Amino acid sequence: MSSSESVVNKQARKIKALNTVGAMIYDQIENKEFPWVILQSRSVDNIVYDPKTRQYVLGDKKIRRHARNIRNIRPFTQLVWTAWFAKELLKLRKTSTLREVYYSARGQRDIEFKDQFESDNIITDLETMLNSAREDFQIFSEERSAIFGDLTIEYTVPGYEGKRMNFTAHPDGVMIGPAVTSSELIETSADKIIVIEKGAMFTRLVEEKAYDRFNALLIHTAGQAPRSTRSLLYRLSKEMGLPVYIFTDGDPWGVHIAMVIISGSANAAHLRGLTTPDAKWIGVWASDILKYKLPTENMTDIDIKRIKELMKDPRYEDELWQDELKIFLNIKKKAEQEAFSRYGLTYIVDEYLPYKLETT
Amino acid sequence: MSSSESVVNKQARKIKALNTVGAMIYDQIENKEFPWVILQSRSVDNIVYDPKTRQYVLGDKKIRRHARNIRNIRPFTQLVWTAWFAKELLKLRKTSTLREVYYSARGQRDIEFKDQFESDNIITDLETMLNSAREDFQIFSEERSAIFGDLTIEYTVPGYEGKRMNFTAHPDGVMIGPAVTSSELIETSADKIIVIEKGAMFTRLVEEKAYDRFNALLIHTAGQAPRSTRSLLYRLSKEMGLPVYIFTDGDPWGVHIAMVIISGSANAAHLRGLTTPDAKWIGVWASDILKYKLPTENMTDIDIKRIKELMKDPRYEDELWQDELKIFLNIKKKAEQEAFSRYGLTYIVDEYLPYKLETT
Repeated sequence: MSSSESVVNKQARKIKALNTVGAMIYDQIENKEFPWVILQSRSVDNIVYDPKTRQYVLGDKKIRRHARNIRNIRPFTQLVWTAWFAKELLKLRKTSTLREVYYSARGQRDIEFKDQFESDNIITDLETMLNSAREDFQIFSEERSAIFGDLTIEYTVPGYEGKRMNFTAHPDGVMIGPAVTSSELIETSADKIIVIEKGAMFTRLVEEKAYDRFNALLIHTAGQAPRSTRSLLYRLSKEMGLPVYIFTDGDPWGVHIAMVIISGSANAAHLRGLTTPDAKWIGVWASDILKYKLPTENMTDIDIKRIKELMKDPRYEDELWQDELKIFLNIKKKAEQEAFSRYGLTYIVDEYLPYKLETT
Repeated sequence: MSSSESVVNKQARKIKALNTVGAMIYDQIENKEFPWVILQSRSVDNIVYDPKTRQYVLGDKKIRRHARNIRNIRPFTQLVWTAWFAKELLKLRKTSTLREVYYSARGQRDIEFKDQFESDNIITDLETMLNSAREDFQIFSEERSAIFGDLTIEYTVPGYEGKRMNFTAHPDGVMIGPAVTSSELIETSADKIIVIEKGAMFTRLVEEKAYDRFNALLIHTAGQAPRSTRSLLYRLSKEMGLPVYIFTDGDPWGVHIAMVIISGSANAAHLRGLTTPDAKWIGVWASDILKYKLPTENMTDIDIKRIKELMKDPRYEDELWQDELKIFLNIKKKAEQEAFSRYGLTYIVDEYLPYKLETT
């Protein structure tokens, strides 16, 4: 999902990786061993923050999941079944979702997940074992975001191979689903990406031709950016060299939407290619709330608790973040992206964004 | 929003309607009257269910909002400001959202909304006064759904006038926002519409070429269908004669997603053109859960309470609904659309949907 190798090559390579795991297990059985697999431990004590890459990574601790151990038989079997299912998806060139994988298992006589949490967890084991994101073996989440702007991609999904799409075609935005995620990035005239938390602001920026004025691709995350969108941002940043600017609500949840794009999450410590460490959070800053006298709401206790958590989080150690978090804590107010409408609908593109893109 | 007159004509007509309201108020003032407007009452006792059109409508009760009455001055002024704002949007050919309208008012010296609830309410007054949906005067909600299939539209939004788009262009689906809502419907080879509650199932149906196999447009509501999507369904059904089939989760919330598309909501009793009374709910029925032995979850107390409410709701008086609600109440189980994956990922398009589309 993360490299710039061709998507079709990558799919072939993933099938091979899954076959290798399968062959290893067959060999173990033929050698009269109880079969086993090794994977990096994802326990809390093996997740460490790496200041150099500015993301969480897994430490050196490994676990061996061994069918000889009666407590391991269940997750071992589940993992093998999930690997088989992933191979089928790749072979048939079908996609699936976390939830569908769970229900698909329910149709099997000999495999069992007691809930989706258990099957999601095994899928993460598979990611860890193969060192690659589940999207690489065709398993997606339900969340969708949207994109607009001058980017041409070439599809690799069945029925659309070789067809191209330019994302200025539809002014309401096109969805970022499996077809975009698995596409080749062909060309763009944009020189930056503006990531937007909310649909209303995305529509505003399309309408005010922000893509044209700022020469930017616009991506709407619809809240926390789905993993496939974070991977697309990584590729756009790496393969096409586009800097990424993130524009969110001025509250702890908006701040963290930006941070997860920049530094990822502890849950994805076993994966690479999902973070964009050079991406910039351009607002709404706590200091913007004061500077622009934005209409605000009072923070709730949950907001305040969340800010205190973020202040202790290693991803937030830099001064900019600490300063802004402190201001939030002082003023105990939050402001939405749309709050700039108090100065007219176009203020955001006429004044605020040009200044922020220039100075951040 | 609802008729088949051209979109551009309709915009001109809306500006005229708003100007008429303004002129009337000027006349009143010049005649030394305190200005006033008349609108249908939206109080609960004036909302009645009309079994003939199968939707809620407003009764005959009217209210006069009179600037002479001190309690009316505030909402009267707010209504006049909102009408002015709507006219500006139409004139400038800009769209806006409920939230932006609220914040835009915050920038005015002489107008005040204490919260967004108050401004939303005044926008509904404006709809009632003008007998047309806020989307007709360019005010949208944030919710977005998506569409895929062989439908060609022609945009009317600035910069895209006359451009056409066919919704098979992007296999992840394109968003239904202001550009789709304001477009002219040009042509389709589809002979039905399948409406889908969830993104995962939408992606599944695109991937399994359900649009081709069932000759259908696919629309993803992402939960409760946004009003602009309900209006699009109305137009597709009325202007293009396409029957509508709705496929939801098998639980009271899924049932009600179908019902709101079919019969609308009490909140929109003042509007026409948002319901599709001949649309059919094809599943997941409670009886399907039993018939197909679907994996289920237990209903919560909230689910059960909701089912009892629906059973007393006049929209649910028909036998099919009552029977299915009774079964839900008996089995106290619910099932998701994806539950059919227990029979394999393609079962839904190979077996379930063909049967349901044939027999419902």
